[in-house]
Amino acid sequence: MSNPTAAMLVIGDEILSGRTRDANMHFLAQEFTKHGVDLKEVRVVSDDKPAIIDALNALRAGFDVVVTSGGIGPTHDDITADCVAEAFGAHIDVRDDARALLAAHYERQGSEFNTARQRMARIPDGATLIDNPVSIAPGFSMENVHVMAGVPAVFQAMVASLLPHITGGAPLLSQSLRIMRGEGEIAEPLGALAAQYPDLSFGSYPFQRDGVYGANVVVRGSDGAKVDHAMAALSALFPQT
Amino acid sequence: MSNPTAAMLVIGDEILSGRTRDANMHFLAQEFTKHGVDLKEVRVVSDDKPAIIDALNALRAGFDVVVTSGGIGPTHDDITADCVAEAFGAHIDVRDDARALLAAHYERQGSEFNTARQRMARIPDGATLIDNPVSIAPGFSMENVHVMAGVPAVFQAMVASLLPHITGGAPLLSQSLRIMRGEGEIAEPLGALAAQYPDLSFGSYPFQRDGVYGANVVVRGSDGAKVDHAMAALSALFPQT
Repeated sequence: MSNPTAAMLVIGDEILSGRTRDANMHFLAQEFTKHGVDLKEVRVVSDDKPAIIDALNALRAGFDVVVTSGGIGPTHDDITADCVAEAFGAHIDVRDDARALLAAHYERQGSEFNTARQRMARIPDGATLIDNPVSIAPGFSMENVHVMAGVPAVFQAMVASLLPHITGGAPLLSQSLRIMRGEGEIAEPLGALAAQYPDLSFGSYPFQRDGVYGANVVVRGSDGAKVDHAMAALSALFPQT
Repeated sequence: MSNPTAAMLVIGDEILSGRTRDANMHFLAQEFTKHGVDLKEVRVVSDDKPAIIDALNALRAGFDVVVTSGGIGPTHDDITADCVAEAFGAHIDVRDDARALLAAHYERQGSEFNTARQRMARIPDGATLIDNPVSIAPGFSMENVHVMAGVPAVFQAMVASLLPHITGGAPLLSQSLRIMRGEGEIAEPLGALAAQYPDLSFGSYPFQRDGVYGANVVVRGSDGAKVDHAMAALSALFPQT
C-alpha cells in the first residue's frame, strides 16, 4: 500500500507580495511526513475567487488529501469558504452548529456577535467542522478538502485536530550524510548508487561555507532497513576523512 | 498599463518533505513587488518529470513571466533543464557557451571538469544564459521562463542578473495600520471603506498577543496618492486611542 498523496493550497496576497513569509507550508510538510502522507504539491494563490476555485478543483481531483490555509476570518477579503462551496456546487450560509460555537465564545468574552463575526459561521452544506481550540472559529472538511485558518497558531491547532482523521501510511524515513566535497565530484558515483535503490529517493543538497564546498546527501524511504543499507553503502563510497 | 504578471515554480523534494524551509519564494516576492511585477501564483512540485513539465506548461501559458528555482546542479536529481527542454519541444545538450564558462572556472580552481559537472552546461537550444557570479554554472531564459538555482545565495544573484531584462510596471506600494481591536469589530466598516477604493486592495491580518486581539490592515496599490488618501480615511475610521 502506498501512502496517501496530498496537496496544499495557500491563499493570501500577503505571501505573494512578500509582506509575510509563509510558515504553514513548512509546518504541514513536517507533520505529513511524520504521519505517512506524501505532500506532492503546494500552490500559493492570491485572494481572487476564480484563481482559488480553479486551484481547488485541480488539487482535489489530483490528490487524496487537500489542505487549504488562509481566508476564513470575518473581513471582506476572507472568501475561502464561499470559494469551496462554489467549487463543490454546495449551498453555503451561516450554519447553526458553527453559529452556536461562536455565539457561546463571544458571550463568554462579553463581545458582540455581530454580522462580521457571523461570517465565520458560514459553512457549506455537507461539511464537517474542524475544531479550533485557539480562537474557536472552526475550519471545515468538505470531502477530501480541509479548510484551515492562515494564522500559524490557529493553523497548527487545526492540523492537530485533523490528523487523527486522516489515515496515514508508513512515515517517510530519512537519513543524511554530510560530504565535504563538491557536488560535481560526488555526482557520478552517487547517481550510480541511487540507481541501485529504485525504492528510495536520494537527494543532494549542495552548500558552500567559507569557501569550502560540500553536500548533504539525504536518503528517503519508508523501509527503514533499506534506508540503513543504502546509508552504509553511501558511507563506504564517501569515507569521512 | 497594468503590471506584468508572474508565477514561480519551486522544484524540490526537500521542501515538500519539510527538510528545508523555502526561502526563495519570499525573496522573489519582495523583489518583484519592488520591480512592479505582480507575482500571482507559486507552485512547489517534487523532483518528478511529469509534475514539473505539467506545471511549466500551465504557468508559462498563464503568466507573462515564470521563474523556476531548483534542480539545475550536477547530480542525478537535477532534471529541471531537461524538463524545460521537453516542455518547449526543444533540443538539449551540453552547449559550447556554457561549457566554456564552466571549463574556465574549473581550470582556475584546479578541479576536474568531469561528466557530472558538464551536465550543468546542458542548455536548451534557443535559451539565453543567466549570469551566476556566485558559482558560475549559469541559469537560462527560454522565452518567458527563467530557470535558476535553488541554493538561496545563487538564486538571489541570478534574480539580480535577470531583473534588468524584465520590464516592470509601477511598483506595488503598501502602507499599513496596526489596529488594536479584534478583526470581528473592524470588519464591517473596513469592508465598506474597501468598497470605496476598487483600485486598491485592503488586506486584514489578525494577530493575538498576550491575550490582546489586533489586526494589521494593509492598503496596496500602484497609485501613491490614492494609497495616501485611503490611509487617511482608514486612520479617521479607526482613531488610535
